[in-house]
Amino acid sequence: MSYNLAPLQNLIDQFERMQGIGNKTAQRMAFYVLSLSDEEAEVFAKAITDAHTKIKQCKICCDLADEELCPVCKDESRDRSVICVVEDPRDVVAIERTHEYNGMYHVLHGAISPMDNIGPDQIRIKELISRLGDGVCEEIIMATNPTVEGEATAMYISRLLKPMGITVSRLAYGVPVGADLEYADEVTLSRALKGRSLI
Amino acid sequence: MSYNLAPLQNLIDQFERMQGIGNKTAQRMAFYVLSLSDEEAEVFAKAITDAHTKIKQCKICCDLADEELCPVCKDESRDRSVICVVEDPRDVVAIERTHEYNGMYHVLHGAISPMDNIGPDQIRIKELISRLGDGVCEEIIMATNPTVEGEATAMYISRLLKPMGITVSRLAYGVPVGADLEYADEVTLSRALKGRSLI
Repeated sequence: MSYNLAPLQNLIDQFERMQGIGNKTAQRMAFYVLSLSDEEAEVFAKAITDAHTKIKQCKICCDLADEELCPVCKDESRDRSVICVVEDPRDVVAIERTHEYNGMYHVLHGAISPMDNIGPDQIRIKELISRLGDGVCEEIIMATNPTVEGEATAMYISRLLKPMGITVSRLAYGVPVGADLEYADEVTLSRALKGRSLI
Repeated sequence: MSYNLAPLQNLIDQFERMQGIGNKTAQRMAFYVLSLSDEEAEVFAKAITDAHTKIKQCKICCDLADEELCPVCKDESRDRSVICVVEDPRDVVAIERTHEYNGMYHVLHGAISPMDNIGPDQIRIKELISRLGDGVCEEIIMATNPTVEGEATAMYISRLLKPMGITVSRLAYGVPVGADLEYADEVTLSRALKGRSLI
């Protein structure tokens, strides 16, 4: 379905380009924009350009930041001897929500994926290595996604860091808390068995 | 979940305000915006303000238009003796897609709904009445939604127009093509029975 009105169709196309947004949702969103007042639409448009111009990457951990350093890297009370390596800024937020981790982060902005032409140079591995030069960090926790790409990235980085004498650990695999064993897939279940602990 | 970065959280809030967009989707959308290049983000923001400033309502039928008249009202080949009254500009697009209708439209921009404080004066009924003054229109097809509000609006307008000697018709009710009778609700089915036709 396409509209005869270029500005409307153009806006629908812009929304539809987003991952997970279909034609119907994009239409609904465009009509939402039309229903706004002129000022509200201005504020909305400005939020987009603002987010784009004001948000940069933290100079240390490559997480998103609106200043030179992100809030975690600025925080003097955090434990600088542990760095948790994640693929995406959203993963930092997820880990922060646990309130169980007080170390630093490093955001790779992706994972090694030869299928998508993403090699070690396309993600922030160089930045991670250069952070380790000062000898403050003692442990790296690899918290990349439990996917083929995340695994490969974790393996690659751990091989790179082992000769430097840094402990590299990986998030535990197992059944998610609250889940039903019946519905757990075989790989997860076999990893949970292997990783069993004494009670 | 909230972000420490004001420009990012602000953008997420803007997206989340849209109907049907939850927090996770809004986040994904905001990160999509961050992944754009500066020029792309500029184009996106401009699409929002453009749609808002360039799209107005057609002087005749109140449909959306980027000029004084909408494409349908400008089209000389369309049958001016029939006007199809709909609630929303999207309904025009839906009917146009059937390629079965060659008449004109009138967009009410809503339906009478006392619960939401929307009376006859809040929707474009006055504009419809003033269009009928020239005597060109012979039939009005009420294509408001088959909801309580849509019904009430159709009844209200038909009572208003009957004394003017204009035929007022209503879209047929019945089972949707391709649907399963077993799952049709009782009201729809009883309407379909009442409206049965000879084969």
